[in-house]
Amino acid sequence: MSECIFCRIVLRKEPAYIIYEDNDSIVFLDKYPMSYGHLLIAPKKHFADVVDTPPKLVSKIFLLARAFGMATMKYLNASGFRIMTNKGSSAGQVIFHFHVHVIPRYGFGSPGPIEPREVIREDIATEIINKLNKAMFDKEIRDRIEGKI
Amino acid sequence: MSECIFCRIVLRKEPAYIIYEDNDSIVFLDKYPMSYGHLLIAPKKHFADVVDTPPKLVSKIFLLARAFGMATMKYLNASGFRIMTNKGSSAGQVIFHFHVHVIPRYGFGSPGPIEPREVIREDIATEIINKLNKAMFDKEIRDRIEGKI
Repeated sequence: MSECIFCRIVLRKEPAYIIYEDNDSIVFLDKYPMSYGHLLIAPKKHFADVVDTPPKLVSKIFLLARAFGMATMKYLNASGFRIMTNKGSSAGQVIFHFHVHVIPRYGFGSPGPIEPREVIREDIATEIINKLNKAMFDKEIRDRIEGKI
Repeated sequence: MSECIFCRIVLRKEPAYIIYEDNDSIVFLDKYPMSYGHLLIAPKKHFADVVDTPPKLVSKIFLLARAFGMATMKYLNASGFRIMTNKGSSAGQVIFHFHVHVIPRYGFGSPGPIEPREVIREDIATEIINKLNKAMFDKEIRDRIEGKI
């Protein structure tokens, strides 16, 4: 059994709030969110970090991050977002399976209660998932997911 | 004359410590670095942010960030790095010309004196440029810049 927690999430051996997946990528809620709707975008296959991941997959993951950043603006009412990845523990990397953070920001207060860096509450996670599911039917978001725009 | 400071850097109307450029991209030192070797990667053409920039160019810029992150590890002795972009002022975006930050981290102290968020000293900037120029002759870095690996 894989020791890597993100590999285990991909295999459904570990619970996570999954927003989206396709043949090579997965998007799920950060367990210890820094803001309402904090997402992680990762390849399904195991690579330690951004340096180890093949360039095409790196591009795909960052384009997914951009698409889901837009989804947080349109469906969670975020006023902006940060896209971030850390290489190495000195940079803040904790899980050594490449992932990109999408951290939505809210100009006038968060739409939901988040205690930063505590385990996300199930009711809040469910609410976020319900809102972001609508983004999956949004042509702009779909086109961004597919890298068309 | 362009009002955008990054457009002005591209046109050499504004001073900057430029590390690298090609037909559509430019890499230069952040004027107010958060760490030794803090770099900005930007398209030469003006786009407000990651959402407005065409997907191919977004991919290119993030792959350049990854290449130059490796350059800071190999030539500035960084132990890791952060890649980050902010969309919107609520997320911390200050210059509305798309750019990606590469922020090197050092496990055991920085190799040079940096006062975070103060204007970079010319002697330190020159030192960093001299070190990173060597990376331009490194096959691994070149291959990463070109998206081959």
